[in-house]
Amino acid sequence: MVNVHDLTVEEKASLTSGGDAWHFQPVERLGVPGYMLTDGPHGLRKEKSETAALDMKNTVPATCFPPAAGMSSSWNPDLVREVGVAMGEECIQEDVAVILGPGVNIKRNPLGGRSFEYWSEDPFLAGHEAVGIVEGVQSQGIGTSLKHFAANNQETDRLRIDARISERALREIYLPAFEHIVKTAQPWTIMCAYNQLNGVFGSENRWLLTDVLRGEWGFEGIVMSDWGAVHDRAASLNAGLNLEMPPSYTDDEIVVAVKDGRIPEEQLDRMAQGMLDLVEKAREAMEREGFVFDKDVHHRIARRAAQESIVMLKNEDGLLPLGAGDGAEAAEGVRVAVIGEFARTPRYQGGGSSHINPTKMTSLLDALEERGADFTFAPGFTLDRSEQTDELTAEALAAARAADVVVFAMGLPEEEESEGFDRTHLDMPAKQLELLAAVSEVNPNVVAVLSNGSAVQMNPWQENAKAILETWLLGQAGGSAVADILFGDANPSGKLAQSFPLDIKDDPSMVNWPGGDRVVDYGEGIFVGYRYYDTFDVDVAYPFGYGLSYSTFTVSDVAVEATGATSARVSATVTNTSAVDGAEVIQVYVNPADTTPVQRPVHELKGFQKVFVKAGESVRVSIDLDDRAFAYWSEKDGGWRVVAGEYGVEVATSSRDIVSRETMSLAGDDFYAELNEWSNYGEFKADTWGALAVQHMLEKGATGELPAIPEDNLGVQLFMETMPINSMPVLFGKEGRRLTQFLLEDYAAERAKA
Amino acid sequence: MVNVHDLTVEEKASLTSGGDAWHFQPVERLGVPGYMLTDGPHGLRKEKSETAALDMKNTVPATCFPPAAGMSSSWNPDLVREVGVAMGEECIQEDVAVILGPGVNIKRNPLGGRSFEYWSEDPFLAGHEAVGIVEGVQSQGIGTSLKHFAANNQETDRLRIDARISERALREIYLPAFEHIVKTAQPWTIMCAYNQLNGVFGSENRWLLTDVLRGEWGFEGIVMSDWGAVHDRAASLNAGLNLEMPPSYTDDEIVVAVKDGRIPEEQLDRMAQGMLDLVEKAREAMEREGFVFDKDVHHRIARRAAQESIVMLKNEDGLLPLGAGDGAEAAEGVRVAVIGEFARTPRYQGGGSSHINPTKMTSLLDALEERGADFTFAPGFTLDRSEQTDELTAEALAAARAADVVVFAMGLPEEEESEGFDRTHLDMPAKQLELLAAVSEVNPNVVAVLSNGSAVQMNPWQENAKAILETWLLGQAGGSAVADILFGDANPSGKLAQSFPLDIKDDPSMVNWPGGDRVVDYGEGIFVGYRYYDTFDVDVAYPFGYGLSYSTFTVSDVAVEATGATSARVSATVTNTSAVDGAEVIQVYVNPADTTPVQRPVHELKGFQKVFVKAGESVRVSIDLDDRAFAYWSEKDGGWRVVAGEYGVEVATSSRDIVSRETMSLAGDDFYAELNEWSNYGEFKADTWGALAVQHMLEKGATGELPAIPEDNLGVQLFMETMPINSMPVLFGKEGRRLTQFLLEDYAAERAKA
Repeated sequence: MVNVHDLTVEEKASLTSGGDAWHFQPVERLGVPGYMLTDGPHGLRKEKSETAALDMKNTVPATCFPPAAGMSSSWNPDLVREVGVAMGEECIQEDVAVILGPGVNIKRNPLGGRSFEYWSEDPFLAGHEAVGIVEGVQSQGIGTSLKHFAANNQETDRLRIDARISERALREIYLPAFEHIVKTAQPWTIMCAYNQLNGVFGSENRWLLTDVLRGEWGFEGIVMSDWGAVHDRAASLNAGLNLEMPPSYTDDEIVVAVKDGRIPEEQLDRMAQGMLDLVEKAREAMEREGFVFDKDVHHRIARRAAQESIVMLKNEDGLLPLGAGDGAEAAEGVRVAVIGEFARTPRYQGGGSSHINPTKMTSLLDALEERGADFTFAPGFTLDRSEQTDELTAEALAAARAADVVVFAMGLPEEEESEGFDRTHLDMPAKQLELLAAVSEVNPNVVAVLSNGSAVQMNPWQENAKAILETWLLGQAGGSAVADILFGDANPSGKLAQSFPLDIKDDPSMVNWPGGDRVVDYGEGIFVGYRYYDTFDVDVAYPFGYGLSYSTFTVSDVAVEATGATSARVSATVTNTSAVDGAEVIQVYVNPADTTPVQRPVHELKGFQKVFVKAGESVRVSIDLDDRAFAYWSEKDGGWRVVAGEYGVEVATSSRDIVSRETMSLAGDDFYAELNEWSNYGEFKADTWGALAVQHMLEKGATGELPAIPEDNLGVQLFMETMPINSMPVLFGKEGRRLTQFLLEDYAAERAKA
Repeated sequence: MVNVHDLTVEEKASLTSGGDAWHFQPVERLGVPGYMLTDGPHGLRKEKSETAALDMKNTVPATCFPPAAGMSSSWNPDLVREVGVAMGEECIQEDVAVILGPGVNIKRNPLGGRSFEYWSEDPFLAGHEAVGIVEGVQSQGIGTSLKHFAANNQETDRLRIDARISERALREIYLPAFEHIVKTAQPWTIMCAYNQLNGVFGSENRWLLTDVLRGEWGFEGIVMSDWGAVHDRAASLNAGLNLEMPPSYTDDEIVVAVKDGRIPEEQLDRMAQGMLDLVEKAREAMEREGFVFDKDVHHRIARRAAQESIVMLKNEDGLLPLGAGDGAEAAEGVRVAVIGEFARTPRYQGGGSSHINPTKMTSLLDALEERGADFTFAPGFTLDRSEQTDELTAEALAAARAADVVVFAMGLPEEEESEGFDRTHLDMPAKQLELLAAVSEVNPNVVAVLSNGSAVQMNPWQENAKAILETWLLGQAGGSAVADILFGDANPSGKLAQSFPLDIKDDPSMVNWPGGDRVVDYGEGIFVGYRYYDTFDVDVAYPFGYGLSYSTFTVSDVAVEATGATSARVSATVTNTSAVDGAEVIQVYVNPADTTPVQRPVHELKGFQKVFVKAGESVRVSIDLDDRAFAYWSEKDGGWRVVAGEYGVEVATSSRDIVSRETMSLAGDDFYAELNEWSNYGEFKADTWGALAVQHMLEKGATGELPAIPEDNLGVQLFMETMPINSMPVLFGKEGRRLTQFLLEDYAAERAKA
């Protein structure tokens, strides 16, 4: 195995940038290969031309699994892991050592142009689902690249913008998904973000790439740049960036910088050694010859993944499943009108670097044909911006009139959602909504099948559909999965991983979205998504965690017990009270203790489990809550804190469907904040030893040894409690300094006794 | 006149802290007196014990004018100036050289405990009204102290908290009231705030106290500390703080710091010279002997000020004025039941350092007695937190039943609003609301007279009052003023200086209010008050700028004309279409040009004029808008920018009652942002010379002299427009660097030609 000390400075420098747009740089002298890496994250995007950057149309076929917008609604990490395994196999066949993904940036605002590639507005959910990709891919000896680290939550000016975020919001919202995946799955690589974070580019942020990522979280892999994120090779290398992609052909500058001391050679060694280690990790899989993955098996995985990605938002009058709900045969008598171009031309993934060339493609029409369903089709509208024609409308209405049920396949055309730009509104295209209204007039039995990568405006148009399936972007098997759900061959079990606001103006980030003048302030702090809506009682169209099933469930016998000073366990019994097998997602939200000295959301998701329950049966679930379930990040103390107090633990089936709320007392962590001259008088009185010092001071005030504190003086009333004790002179003149000194000394003496 | 160079270092140091809690330190050797200063800001709070700090109960009588919460609703700077003149006279009599006020901190959130002492949620209004106090007081040869500089917008942990605010929000919201007053009226002193601003204490913030205040705004006076705001004398002195109040008796430390070089002696000289100059400015008034102000005249000014401070929020069925509306005589047949302890025990000012000992006190009952009105009184409720008694309720209902009209005097008891703590909700006391509901059941003709220092929750209780007078805290003549309005001897003309939200949860600062862990993020940025509500279409109970009159007005013949590249003039005719003389406030709001590269409020107040119009007559008003009316603060460019474009100019009678909206084209300022390697490709294409460089690059691409740009490449489509041109290698490999270089050189060459 090659060690970094075997290399010349030039060779070490060469390892820290790509050989071309999609390869590491080899060191041929020592047999270090230049393996390939490609885009992901929901399938392999391997360009046929191996050297050109971003020739996106010409890629080898690969299974297109549901993008994260879909997968995240599954709330099923095992399924995600299965998808990861399959992607790993495809990488082996294609000699790809590292696939770029998953992307776990938080959906700060649903307008974010790349929302379809990200997992959730909630960091716990994002981390606990996306980790499956990392585990699955890496189980095959292939690397992943967790991205975009960090705070790349918008497309607007993403290459330059400075995201200004409090450390608390970073620690509680924008970093935990990364943190969880690093700590539990050790992704081989992490990709830095383009943007600046509090004034420092992602590629140059030593605090992020070295202090936090490696120092605090124990990351053992390498950090590579997003494509073009490096502006100063030396600064990046010193910050902890191992690899610049694609190369800017400035390796010679690195050599010079090492020689003139701007880069410590040990730092170059560390960065280059990381690259050597990465190559070694990939070697076994890369040297495997002739492996061919099974396209059909992967397509079936994609289909199951798509089934679980679908969220049933509405199902009035039990309109779904069609017919008796036991497959196409039971629905034989049901005449279906399929209306909407999306049924023929599915929008199954988003635009940009994640765009896969699928091995196979099943539209909804294909799937209906395949199962021999009784249906007619009318495209209804075009996907471009051309005006609606009378012909399209007339044809759609005729089809609707002649049918028992209308399946209305609507959505956001690809040009409205892509990497590279943010959306400017949540509206669905007007011509689709107008047609839907007209269709529902002639046939009220409308099932809307939505294709979109992030939340859309639901009102008032949703009144025109009795049932709504949110199918997101479902990958190449999406058509089959939708048909499976429509006919009851699959039971919907998806839950929203993001809130659907009533109006985008309700989103608290809108006052700072998307920023301007090259800065964006994350002014809403920790109040992202349901953390805001639920804390401030703002109505939403559909809440986070929401989704219907053909089954009905009850949750009973909830038990909550502390398992330590800062941890707990929740158990509950889930019963399927229907005649249909199905799955429910048990969600655990924690209410903060009111002893917390900072503002916290009314509740936060801290555990979940998807549980499959056969008709009429019950399953007992048990969910552990670790210290992070109760902690907040204290900027004052520079760390996580679990205060002693009463916490609420909610068992729920959405952030607004709370089945049970139990309270539980936790002893809290053993952190003790020492008092000092900046502590205020109120804090002294609240502290065990501080209170003794105050008592002694008052006693000495009574005897005249120290100045007395006139409790009825208005000035004292106004200032005293909140006054840092170093300000005593403002109330007591020169003598005040004796009071400060006495308090500090007596407090120290009392503590020493304890 | 004593010059600083006549002083020893010790003497200079002594000038930079007080002699005691309420006096400058004299230099007796040279005849420099130690004049007195006292609290304000709506009257003199001179402690009888001249040396003890904050003995708030024992003060000499002084006229209690309406606090800022009231005065600010007058929208009448001339009246404010008159009050200032009167306060100056009282200072002369009492040998007070400087009165501490006005306080122009922005009401970021109505829960702010000191809202009653501040002027507005809008910086233009706050600055243009409060400047009258400075002009008025200083016209008498007495100094003012503009406070609290800066960003002291809450009481919670005010002595330590770090207010983290973007520079844009500072420049556009939190500083302009200070800036306007400094530039137009040169307050003799400014008081620094307790809190930290972006990590630096107000007393140590050189950027604020020296660079901005003196360097940019040309401030010529001295900066003193808030009482106890100094933690490091040397750091404060170096930052530009002239005077520590009260003294911490550390002048010797200053001497040492000068000797060991931590304080440059020139800096001490500057700070001490400021104090000498201040004493000289005050000398004439201070040496005036035997001046006695006219208490009755000042009481009458306080009464007029109170009349104009009252905002009539509601007046169904023309319930007000009582009777025929021409004074008490016309109302002779009207039997009035006055219900509510506030009528007997008025809440006429707030608690804390601004608490005045009035020369005279007229309650509403006093005023009604005085004018011989036909009324009965029932206290209805107590002001403490004791439970409602059946006796009080029964008495009130009996009074209500027997009357034609009920005047219901309700409000927030003093213990709910004071310096030193923030409110935690906007609710009115429940027992008052319950009684109001019961009273309105037996007599629907209810006039609610509200006493409160900041916005309160209005719904649903306001349904129980046909008429509502928001009387704020009205000072010592408030009872007479309310009676004047009730009986039509005065016509209400006040307008809200702050929005009344439907629910405090709607306030965008709530996600960061009041912070914790010693920090508070001003996450809503510039979207404070109506800037938020109006931009995001959030319903309010009553909008900013709102207030009714007994008169009716029309506004016509609006003309808007640009008067320069960055300025304009608005004219309009105001006609009183009623039979009652009255006053209307013409408000001018500006809509930003859509060419602005940052998010801006839908409109901002940039001019106003209160105009008195006799019944049936018309008055033409003309309001000038200077460049600041159209500017935003660019963090990127580090300055105010007026972009070229179409601006809207609204003439309005509240932020939601827009009478006319005209658009107007402005040429904009002559700022030109030079392009550089960080400019993106889109910015190059949008620039005159940049576009030429791009054109030349494409031409050379076509001939093969430079790499060609494949427009249909998805990577190019995704990245190109928003890519800083220094990132060309990401798309074009090594050759990309030639493109960057070409663009920069060709742009420079083209500019050089121009």
